[in-house]
Amino acid sequence: MERDELKALLESVAEGRLSVDDAFMSLRLDPIKELGYANIDTHRSLRQGAAEVVFGEPKTARQIRGIVDAMKESGQARVLITRLSEDKAAALSDIGGFSYDRTARLGVIGQNREPDGIGTIVVATGGTGDIPVAEEAAKTAEFFGNEVKRIYDVGVAGIHRLLSHTDEIMSAGVMIAVAGMEGALASVVGGLADCPVIAVPTSVGYGASFGGVSALLSMLNSCASGVSVVNIDNGFGAGFQASMINHMGRK
Amino acid sequence: MERDELKALLESVAEGRLSVDDAFMSLRLDPIKELGYANIDTHRSLRQGAAEVVFGEPKTARQIRGIVDAMKESGQARVLITRLSEDKAAALSDIGGFSYDRTARLGVIGQNREPDGIGTIVVATGGTGDIPVAEEAAKTAEFFGNEVKRIYDVGVAGIHRLLSHTDEIMSAGVMIAVAGMEGALASVVGGLADCPVIAVPTSVGYGASFGGVSALLSMLNSCASGVSVVNIDNGFGAGFQASMINHMGRK
Amino acid sequence: MERDELKALLESVAEGRLSVDDAFMSLRLDPIKELGYANIDTHRSLRQGAAEVVFGEPKTARQIRGIVDAMKESGQARVLITRLSEDKAAALSDIGGFSYDRTARLGVIGQNREPDGIGTIVVATGGTGDIPVAEEAAKTAEFFGNEVKRIYDVGVAGIHRLLSHTDEIMSAGVMIAVAGMEGALASVVGGLADCPVIAVPTSVGYGASFGGVSALLSMLNSCASGVSVVNIDNGFGAGFQASMINHMGRK
Amino acid sequence: MERDELKALLESVAEGRLSVDDAFMSLRLDPIKELGYANIDTHRSLRQGAAEVVFGEPKTARQIRGIVDAMKESGQARVLITRLSEDKAAALSDIGGFSYDRTARLGVIGQNREPDGIGTIVVATGGTGDIPVAEEAAKTAEFFGNEVKRIYDVGVAGIHRLLSHTDEIMSAGVMIAVAGMEGALASVVGGLADCPVIAVPTSVGYGASFGGVSALLSMLNSCASGVSVVNIDNGFGAGFQASMINHMGRK
Amino acid sequence: MERDELKALLESVAEGRLSVDDAFMSLRLDPIKELGYANIDTHRSLRQGAAEVVFGEPKTARQIRGIVDAMKESGQARVLITRLSEDKAAALSDIGGFSYDRTARLGVIGQNREPDGIGTIVVATGGTGDIPVAEEAAKTAEFFGNEVKRIYDVGVAGIHRLLSHTDEIMSAGVMIAVAGMEGALASVVGGLADCPVIAVPTSVGYGASFGGVSALLSMLNSCASGVSVVNIDNGFGAGFQASMINHMGRK
Amino acid sequence: MERDELKALLESVAEGRLSVDDAFMSLRLDPIKELGYANIDTHRSLRQGAAEVVFGEPKTARQIRGIVDAMKESGQARVLITRLSEDKAAALSDIGGFSYDRTARLGVIGQNREPDGIGTIVVATGGTGDIPVAEEAAKTAEFFGNEVKRIYDVGVAGIHRLLSHTDEIMSAGVMIAVAGMEGALASVVGGLADCPVIAVPTSVGYGASFGGVSALLSMLNSCASGVSVVNIDNGFGAGFQASMINHMGRK
Amino acid sequence: MERDELKALLESVAEGRLSVDDAFMSLRLDPIKELGYANIDTHRSLRQGAAEVVFGEPKTARQIRGIVDAMKESGQARVLITRLSEDKAAALSDIGGFSYDRTARLGVIGQNREPDGIGTIVVATGGTGDIPVAEEAAKTAEFFGNEVKRIYDVGVAGIHRLLSHTDEIMSAGVMIAVAGMEGALASVVGGLADCPVIAVPTSVGYGASFGGVSALLSMLNSCASGVSVVNIDNGFGAGFQASMINHMGRK
Amino acid sequence: MERDELKALLESVAEGRLSVDDAFMSLRLDPIKELGYANIDTHRSLRQGAAEVVFGEPKTARQIRGIVDAMKESGQARVLITRLSEDKAAALSDIGGFSYDRTARLGVIGQNREPDGIGTIVVATGGTGDIPVAEEAAKTAEFFGNEVKRIYDVGVAGIHRLLSHTDEIMSAGVMIAVAGMEGALASVVGGLADCPVIAVPTSVGYGASFGGVSALLSMLNSCASGVSVVNIDNGFGAGFQASMINHMGRK
Repeated sequence: MERDELKALLESVAEGRLSVDDAFMSLRLDPIKELGYANIDTHRSLRQGAAEVVFGEPKTARQIRGIVDAMKESGQARVLITRLSEDKAAALSDIGGFSYDRTARLGVIGQNREPDGIGTIVVATGGTGDIPVAEEAAKTAEFFGNEVKRIYDVGVAGIHRLLSHTDEIMSAGVMIAVAGMEGALASVVGGLADCPVIAVPTSVGYGASFGGVSALLSMLNSCASGVSVVNIDNGFGAGFQASMINHMGRK
Repeated sequence: MERDELKALLESVAEGRLSVDDAFMSLRLDPIKELGYANIDTHRSLRQGAAEVVFGEPKTARQIRGIVDAMKESGQARVLITRLSEDKAAALSDIGGFSYDRTARLGVIGQNREPDGIGTIVVATGGTGDIPVAEEAAKTAEFFGNEVKRIYDVGVAGIHRLLSHTDEIMSAGVMIAVAGMEGALASVVGGLADCPVIAVPTSVGYGASFGGVSALLSMLNSCASGVSVVNIDNGFGAGFQASMINHMGRK
Repeated sequence: MERDELKALLESVAEGRLSVDDAFMSLRLDPIKELGYANIDTHRSLRQGAAEVVFGEPKTARQIRGIVDAMKESGQARVLITRLSEDKAAALSDIGGFSYDRTARLGVIGQNREPDGIGTIVVATGGTGDIPVAEEAAKTAEFFGNEVKRIYDVGVAGIHRLLSHTDEIMSAGVMIAVAGMEGALASVVGGLADCPVIAVPTSVGYGASFGGVSALLSMLNSCASGVSVVNIDNGFGAGFQASMINHMGRK
Repeated sequence: MERDELKALLESVAEGRLSVDDAFMSLRLDPIKELGYANIDTHRSLRQGAAEVVFGEPKTARQIRGIVDAMKESGQARVLITRLSEDKAAALSDIGGFSYDRTARLGVIGQNREPDGIGTIVVATGGTGDIPVAEEAAKTAEFFGNEVKRIYDVGVAGIHRLLSHTDEIMSAGVMIAVAGMEGALASVVGGLADCPVIAVPTSVGYGASFGGVSALLSMLNSCASGVSVVNIDNGFGAGFQASMINHMGRK
Repeated sequence: MERDELKALLESVAEGRLSVDDAFMSLRLDPIKELGYANIDTHRSLRQGAAEVVFGEPKTARQIRGIVDAMKESGQARVLITRLSEDKAAALSDIGGFSYDRTARLGVIGQNREPDGIGTIVVATGGTGDIPVAEEAAKTAEFFGNEVKRIYDVGVAGIHRLLSHTDEIMSAGVMIAVAGMEGALASVVGGLADCPVIAVPTSVGYGASFGGVSALLSMLNSCASGVSVVNIDNGFGAGFQASMINHMGRK
Repeated sequence: MERDELKALLESVAEGRLSVDDAFMSLRLDPIKELGYANIDTHRSLRQGAAEVVFGEPKTARQIRGIVDAMKESGQARVLITRLSEDKAAALSDIGGFSYDRTARLGVIGQNREPDGIGTIVVATGGTGDIPVAEEAAKTAEFFGNEVKRIYDVGVAGIHRLLSHTDEIMSAGVMIAVAGMEGALASVVGGLADCPVIAVPTSVGYGASFGGVSALLSMLNSCASGVSVVNIDNGFGAGFQASMINHMGRK
Repeated sequence: MERDELKALLESVAEGRLSVDDAFMSLRLDPIKELGYANIDTHRSLRQGAAEVVFGEPKTARQIRGIVDAMKESGQARVLITRLSEDKAAALSDIGGFSYDRTARLGVIGQNREPDGIGTIVVATGGTGDIPVAEEAAKTAEFFGNEVKRIYDVGVAGIHRLLSHTDEIMSAGVMIAVAGMEGALASVVGGLADCPVIAVPTSVGYGASFGGVSALLSMLNSCASGVSVVNIDNGFGAGFQASMINHMGRK
Repeated sequence: MERDELKALLESVAEGRLSVDDAFMSLRLDPIKELGYANIDTHRSLRQGAAEVVFGEPKTARQIRGIVDAMKESGQARVLITRLSEDKAAALSDIGGFSYDRTARLGVIGQNREPDGIGTIVVATGGTGDIPVAEEAAKTAEFFGNEVKRIYDVGVAGIHRLLSHTDEIMSAGVMIAVAGMEGALASVVGGLADCPVIAVPTSVGYGASFGGVSALLSMLNSCASGVSVVNIDNGFGAGFQASMINHMGRK
């Protein structure tokens, strides 16, 4: 039941055109469905102020265009499209305000929100191979209105490189630690930082890295407190949650 | 929002004591919660005619007794308690109408429903070690009003034993195939029967049976059509779904 | 031993041309083989009224054509070919009555059976990426004479979308829940529906979805009663079993 | 090098008793070790205001007592001991201010901090078996100064139970979703809430739940944005990170 | 259908008391079941001359006694009971001719068959911990009439110990290689021997031996030709197949 | 030490040109190396009468040609090259006596040995997709002098197809059961046959077949006695061992 | 062939009692076996100067005593018994010179060798739970004549604790890094040290540590060069190899 | 803080231009970062005398060129680039002193160091398919100044081939055992050698070799003492650590 229908029903009751019992039955029979739908949606957009996100990978360029059109019609000016391949990006390049980041494989329609978070989100990677996932996280956070600092290629096997950034790590609002192979970055960062750390295992590596499983397990077992983990290569998820955390109490 | 509250609200609107806009807001803010709850519950009990089931394993005897009391109060005369250990059963033995099956580890309060299904549910096992799981399935099905036929210890390594029951298998309404180790029973039964087959892998076996994983994979890969699978050792799930299938259109 | 041979043998006995002992030996020595073969086949086609199905994936277009020819010769007018690639479909397109569904990768020869099931089969998917598998299930069910309703892209992360279809789910005869990634759709649907639910994990996802393993485990562990599971991406298996269930007692 | 040593060294330089080159060498040879140690420690205790935590499981009661004594001496009045067995708790019961929670297996010395977080931390569980892990999370959060709301036994197989708490979920500051078996709670909660969700898989279940792996994978694959995951049964980690998030900008 | 029934049916046809068509239908409806059963059983005992084997592990002492009684009644004088625990063996010790081997966990009723195989079966183990499984294999082979030679504790890490038995290995009729940990014994033996090698992985080891998985994989990947593998700890299976091989053409 | 060197040394001793002690030292210092090499090789070729086999997969066509040349020079007229791709086969087609089997991916130089085994080797497959692996087994066995009977596409889901071959199975000398998916063929065949059964899991299947793991586990867990298993898709290994078994006592 | 036999054979040749050809055949037929055995053994004890080690876990106290007696008889004064339980140690306590370390579960007969290695072996652990495995490594190294330095409880989550030992790490001859959970210690240590690092994963942890698998994978994927790994909990193996490395060129 | 900055600061103190307290604060606030960085780097290059290594796989040719330029500028004349594809090598071929090894996929700038190790590093492989990984190890060791001996294709299934190299193995300073499939080479070599053995599992194999997992587990479970393991296909890691070991005490 849509807003208008609900209002009409209530007006009918108020005007005596609909009995209380009939209205009662109508509401009893179908309460969750339409009310729930509209309600929640409204809440989300009011409170989050968040642009909607489109998961580009399993969709054709045509499907994405259709969704974007629908979103624009409903007043959604800013859109973030994740895991967008280059060829699909090319096919969407004529959409107004569209830009594409090849490294992060992100398509953006519209501008990033003005940074209004509590602190800075610091994104660190263990190696250079982890940068695409890190960029997906960083650019997602920027899209949602966060200042982002990047500390790349500071893997724990050369701990001094990481330690030379101790200040940035200690003053971060939220940390995102992106690493493949042994994924130890999350633990060391988790020990240095006194902010929430979101760990992102990547599929970088070979042999017993098993496509990111080694890093994933390592991060889940981190003996540092304050570390949680998202799916392998899920830069978007990390960036999105980091933004949520960074806007605590500011919604 | 409970029924009474909703009705009161609508009456307030009808009587002009509550404006349409205020009623609208009230309904918008809390529509899913209580209405949804009551609504669905009612539907379930009306349509399924099913006794409620208590998963006994993670609960103490005291907790189970409390739940049973609450169910009885709300008019639920028949209760099925699954994965009930002997000592908990002993502690519950003074509940009126309580009986316990040691093999199936099932506690039952009240009588089985009169069999009113479409056909017979045939429960087959590969070995004698699979019988406890099979009995859980069989007794669950009987509890919910089904005629059950047991064909135990007919593993495919002695295919003649299974084939000597071809008639029963071919005339079954629903088959439940319970097997550990290589779990091949499901495929052979699936090829013989022309009814839905629910396969239950069991943790019987050793070495590379990996606690039922071998049988589980085998059953999921069955090349026979019409076979689906439940969790390892989940006799209850198989018996319950078999009963649902056997009452198609009779609810 | 074929029908005709068996009949000839019995006639020889009746006419005294074959002694009882010799007939006895003949039947003893080869009872299972040919009798069994014919017998079971006959039973299947008589009772199931089901067209035969060809698993297209491991077969060449030439092999499929050969099988189809043999089936037609033996009077099988309707054929369903699963997991048929586009190029094989092209190579078979001159077969009379052949049609091809690109999404479901199904080839069909002949018409769908008239719907004559007990209820409606509702096919739901978590995301758009699950649709090919869902269509395989849906079209298989239609082929075997079922009315099918599709509810696509109702993943549990936006529970309101799913709940807006509560009525359809509650009135389904059989549900097929198709989902990749976390596969939670099966549990939620299993809790809403009071009909058998067949869950189909899909290989949609990345990272720790492990090609469908995550969804598979999730579905096997569903805490909803009445849910069983088929192999990853096995839309056909779900559709076929759903049809079996939907024709309970109507064979 | 400790503070005093460093100061003495600098004073020697200032007073001409130590050459610049010798001071340079001294600092070059051992810069990280002692300075780093002291420095970081100070930062942590100044900024976090956090009581230290003792992981009780691998330690004997005697070892724990020794650590607690050392902490008290260094001015640490409040201590949280995790995964503390009943018998160890009994052996520690004479420590001043010690209390023990049997369900959460937590020992606490001193009082909880006054709640001073941004919002409420809502802890939800799928079943009753998940409560011990949830309590570990909840009590940890309370220890660190957070208001906690518990919503237990709201598994997705009875979605209405969960939905009846939509308001609490929507107004949460941080959500902790604790579930075993299929772990779908995280996804549904993640879709309803517009706050960070920390998912805790539990080892509750049997068969293909594989000691929490099924729930873990499910949660990692959650299609809801804003969900991250901690180790199986790691209630403490979830409670600690939730507290960190809930104190964003308030350190 | 039993022998007598079949004969009676055929006589009825011969005497004109049963029409050919009725007899045809009777045979069509139930041909596999009873005929098949009797037929195959007879074949097995006639051809194999093999004593029946009882898998003792999942059965109670009472169940085993019942089976043994039934076997004796049907003329089976010799029985091999595998995976028989000490306490069950004690409970069965009054059965006539019963003996028990604690190491191999085998119960034997009656005498071993006289050795009548083609060659000698050589059983080798990598370590002393593998001996129980090796003894199960060796004693099984002896039970079925084979000469067995044991070469224990000749693991490949001390290759000279193994090589000092080169003659025995080269002159073996069948080799059984029993090893845990890295399971390399099978490959080395497979390279030395020019007879079939049956490899038995054992669950001996710790850490990454994963209960025998490491040895199992190693053996499956053996680059030596002529090696096949049985389940982890399945000494019986290896001994039984070795005996079959050693009696090729002598049945 | 090569044959000639050894002979020269002994002659030196006989002629008094070398003291016993010096000869003793020479033999002590290097006994294993060269003697061992030659000795074993001779034994193998004398006793096995087996042509050497080349594992073609990891080798270039040039490398294979080099090995074949060396084998021919040393008098090896017959060569079997396994896992030989079509393009490598084309590059080797000018070798005298070379023939190639596309299905089995086998290259053969020279003729098959005359069949001189004890019995017939029966190769069965579950489906048509398993035929390439089965042909690798069958042609390997034929190469080494065995009569081979093929029973293809007799998967257990249509048990009657398999049973119609009961006679062939019961009279087999050795069985090779080749199957993917659920791999149940091995168990059923193992129950019907009274000869050694070598099971070959294949990587045919999808989803939870995990590239042959499901079939592998199923076969390892076969409850039929007398079944052993080789690596996934290892048709050659099965054919080679079957030949060994079939030549027991005839070397 | 033993020394004496070989000498006798050569003497026969020298004296003309045995023809060169017969001697040649004798040596050809059995060269590897006994010579090989003696030869290699002598080499090992001469060069390694190493006491023999007994793996105590799978052996009874009686078996261990027997082996120790045999070793003593053959002149082996020092013995190291690994994985020795307390009760077995008690049963062996009357052996002369026997001492037992409860933490390391090591029994030692005789004294440690005088330290004569190239440098110091530094053993580090991530946590206190890893100490038993570390002690097994440390005491093994001491037994074989190495100076050992222990740095315990320096897990990477508190990187400053580890860094405060930078000097010891940088001046180590060989490092042994012992850690469970995420096992990141190996990578950080590997980056700081410029000596070989042997990593020992431990089974310390819970949930997704999977009994040491997480640490094992992490260590195998270490991005630091110069790190190699031994089996989970294999302290002995690490200590033994470290000693070997530390005695390079000093054998 | 760089060297110069530190010196300047100390000079300011010495000259009275900076108070002790201010200097103290400056050093307290940022001690780890820059000093640590420079310090450790210097230590590494002074002590190791090792050329820097570039992991080529995840980097573009342009990125590699940039790193090489920077290294040259800082005085690094010799560079080793690992896992360098042929096309990237082609793009870098104009760099002065660049050479490329196609088999080992290594790019080298400059000359190998003069061999100055303690002994010879012996690299052995099980098969020909393992040679690329072995060459990566061998050439890495040569680059760092080691004499390397190659023993290829000596898999344990033909143990005589391996044993014919007993002398080389017994006199090795360090062994590198490279093998796929069952990986047994490491155990046999570990038993023969009395030097440290570094085992490298390779991804050579098929079926249950699982991309090197079988060999990896086998090597981790080696019952030979003195064996440690690196990641699957990690030839570089083995060569680098072997070189470290071979230069013990010579840095």
